[in-house]
Amino acid sequence: MRIVGIRREGGPVEVAALSADGGQVTVLAGLADFWADAAGHLAGEATGETVAAGDVEFVPPVLPGARVICIGLNYLKHVAEGSYAAEGVPPYPTLFARWTQSLTVDGAPVPVPANEDGLDWEGEVMVYVGQTLLDATPEQALAAVVGYSTFNDLTSRRAQKLTSQWILGKNGDDSGPLGPLVPAAEVGDLRDGLRVRTRVNGETVQDGTTDQMVYTVGDTLALISQTFTLRPGDLLATGTPSGVGYSRTPPWLLQPGDVVEVEVDRLGVLRNTVVPNEARHER
Amino acid sequence: MRIVGIRREGGPVEVAALSADGGQVTVLAGLADFWADAAGHLAGEATGETVAAGDVEFVPPVLPGARVICIGLNYLKHVAEGSYAAEGVPPYPTLFARWTQSLTVDGAPVPVPANEDGLDWEGEVMVYVGQTLLDATPEQALAAVVGYSTFNDLTSRRAQKLTSQWILGKNGDDSGPLGPLVPAAEVGDLRDGLRVRTRVNGETVQDGTTDQMVYTVGDTLALISQTFTLRPGDLLATGTPSGVGYSRTPPWLLQPGDVVEVEVDRLGVLRNTVVPNEARHER
Repeated sequence: MRIVGIRREGGPVEVAALSADGGQVTVLAGLADFWADAAGHLAGEATGETVAAGDVEFVPPVLPGARVICIGLNYLKHVAEGSYAAEGVPPYPTLFARWTQSLTVDGAPVPVPANEDGLDWEGEVMVYVGQTLLDATPEQALAAVVGYSTFNDLTSRRAQKLTSQWILGKNGDDSGPLGPLVPAAEVGDLRDGLRVRTRVNGETVQDGTTDQMVYTVGDTLALISQTFTLRPGDLLATGTPSGVGYSRTPPWLLQPGDVVEVEVDRLGVLRNTVVPNEARHER
Repeated sequence: MRIVGIRREGGPVEVAALSADGGQVTVLAGLADFWADAAGHLAGEATGETVAAGDVEFVPPVLPGARVICIGLNYLKHVAEGSYAAEGVPPYPTLFARWTQSLTVDGAPVPVPANEDGLDWEGEVMVYVGQTLLDATPEQALAAVVGYSTFNDLTSRRAQKLTSQWILGKNGDDSGPLGPLVPAAEVGDLRDGLRVRTRVNGETVQDGTTDQMVYTVGDTLALISQTFTLRPGDLLATGTPSGVGYSRTPPWLLQPGDVVEVEVDRLGVLRNTVVPNEARHER
C-alpha cells in the first residue's frame, strides 16, 4: 500500500491509498482522523471513494503542526565528506528542524532561491511516528513507527552555511519532497539495509544502505522523547549517505531543468525537477 | 489591545481581545480568519461574544503550521557571555527553529526534562508577521509586522549542547511561553529601545533594551524571505540580552518551584512557574 495526501477541489486534506498503476486514489480518512489511529487505518482496507489521480491535488499526508526532525550526520562517509569532517563522528545524532511548510510531493518543481548557486541533493528515508512517545525506550520508539517514505532534503547550501545553525538553508520553498508513505509492516527494519540511491539526470550520485546509519531510528526517537513528547504524525528524516554535491571538486549543484531522483528499496522512486527562483513568485 | 488565543469547551481556537483587568475576553475571529487579515482585525473593534476569562482555556494565537524562527545571538553582551564568544559577532543572524508545539501561554507550568539540571531563561520580544514576504526589502518586511509579544525561550541546555545544532534543547514541552500580542501600532519600533527584563523569584537576571540588537527585525525577515516565503502568522523571536544562567559561575538554572518573569516595555509581564518532569507525564 502506498499512502498519499490529496485535496479534492480545494477541500480539506484527506489521506488515500494510491493504486498500483498510480492512476487512482481511494480515500482512507481525513488527515486528522488518519493520524488519530494511523496503525489502524493502515491495517485495514481503503474503503472510501475512489477518484482518478488526475482529478486531485497531491499534498504531503502530514499534519500542519507536525515536527519534521532531521538527522544531519548519520552516515560515516557523509560525515567524512562535509564541513564537519574534522570533528569526527558526533557523539549524539545531530538534529535540525524543518517546518512542514517546506514539504512537497513527488513530481513537484523545486525552486532555487535567487541568492543560491543551485540546490544540493540529499536522498533519505523519512520515518512516520504513529504513537505518542514520552521518555520512551528505543524498543517502544521503534514500535511506534507506522511507515516510511522516500525524502529528498534539498538544501540551499549558502543559506545553510551563513552561520553555525543550518535551518534557513533547510527550509526553502518546496525543498522537501516526500514520496508515498509505505506501511512499516511492508518495509521491515532499516537495519536490514535498504539501498538508498540518488540520481541527477540519470547519473547515480549517492548509493548507500540504511544499515550504515550511525544512529538507529529507535535510539534517536527515544533520545528526542526525553526532551519533548513525540506525537502521532511527527516525522524523522534519517540522514543522507555520502555523495552530496557541495563537497565535490568542483562543487556540483542542481540547476533549473535538472531532474533529481531518490530511489529506496521497498519505497520506490521520488522524482522532482529543479526550476528557477521566478517559480517562487508564481506559487 | 492585548490579543490572546482561546478555546471554549474544547472547541476550535479563536482569537480574542483581553480586557484591561484580564477578567474577560471578547472574540475577534477564528484562528485562520484572524491570520487571513490580521491587520484588519487589529484595526477594528472586538465585536464578538464576551466571555469570562475563567470560562476559557488560553492557548497561543498561533497557526499550527506557523514557523517560529528564532535569532540565537542578537545582543552583543549575550554573544560575549556564551559558548560562541570566541567566534565573535556572527556575520548574519544565527537562526534556529522552534515548532509551534513547544509554545504555551502566560501562567502555564513549564516542566524540566528528567535529563536536565534545570531550565535556562531567555527573555525576548516575539514578532508576528502579518503579510506574505517573498524576496522582500527590509522596509517591506518591517511594514508586514502586525504585533509583538513577550516570549521566554526556555532552554534545555544539555540537549541544546549535545551536538552542533541547537533545536532539541529549544523545543522542550511547553518551553516557549508567549504573552498577549500587542498590535504594532501600539508598540512602535524596537529600535526605540524597549527595556527587556527577566526576573527569577523576583531577582532581576537580565536587563537589556531592544536597541542593542545587532540585527533588526526588517533586515532579518528580508534575509529569510530570500530563502523561503514568510506567511501571515509566522513568528520571529528576536533574541535574548545577556544574563542567562548557564554561563554564570556557578551556573544557575531554574528548578521546580521557581517563578520566572519576562517584562518588556509596552508588552507587559509574562510569568511562568517551573515544574518537575513528572508534569510531562500528566499533560
